[in-house]
Amino acid sequence: MLPLNVHHTAIAVRDLDAALADLEAQYGVTPAYREVIEEQGVEEAMVPLGGSHLQLLMPLGEDTPVGRFLASRGEGLHHVALQVADIEAALSHLTDAGARLVDEKPRIGGGGHRIAFVHPKALAGTLIELVEVS
Amino acid sequence: MLPLNVHHTAIAVRDLDAALADLEAQYGVTPAYREVIEEQGVEEAMVPLGGSHLQLLMPLGEDTPVGRFLASRGEGLHHVALQVADIEAALSHLTDAGARLVDEKPRIGGGGHRIAFVHPKALAGTLIELVEVS
Repeated sequence: MLPLNVHHTAIAVRDLDAALADLEAQYGVTPAYREVIEEQGVEEAMVPLGGSHLQLLMPLGEDTPVGRFLASRGEGLHHVALQVADIEAALSHLTDAGARLVDEKPRIGGGGHRIAFVHPKALAGTLIELVEVS
Repeated sequence: MLPLNVHHTAIAVRDLDAALADLEAQYGVTPAYREVIEEQGVEEAMVPLGGSHLQLLMPLGEDTPVGRFLASRGEGLHHVALQVADIEAALSHLTDAGARLVDEKPRIGGGGHRIAFVHPKALAGTLIELVEVS
């Protein structure tokens, strides 16, 4: 189970408009799409950059995963997402490797992709998202 | 000044051997090189993944930037590096855009590349590294 790519690196922000304006002014990049995902409690913007993406995440409220992250850690890097071709095979492999999962089964994430999160305890305190893009 | 790519996403770790073993067991990826950079107080491993890389950073001591990061934040995502073709042009553009820099001039980083860090205050609390790879 080799991931195909680093799909995106995600940044938690308090003000999505302000962060996108800073990103454009500093690096000339703009989002391919912007989307509210109620189930995850976020509004996200996906910014293509070379062969990968930066993702900006703004919580829809304080009592959401990203809202709690901002309250405890402040703005900054939130997770890194790895692109896989078969998310069930990836989750099965990770379970066999003893990695603790957040999501035992895939769910639908941004862009309509199937996604699952791996617990930060599995790899050096780092929240990893799997994104199925075949 | 458009960056060419997300060059790497960096993770601060306490035990580089253990983190590389977890990364290989879980995702089947291995480092292209591993390097001690005394000037930055780190040992780093660069792991190619698709069109980008994951970088693991282990401090050489507690009184280093990554050592202090681990003491205050714990293991986890540390910075994201953007590949640029001309680092002086990129730094000049960022200065014009009002972005606060850590490094006003490029220095030599991992892999012999010229690098510079942009202050987290410039973009949503996120430490950004510029890496010149032409």
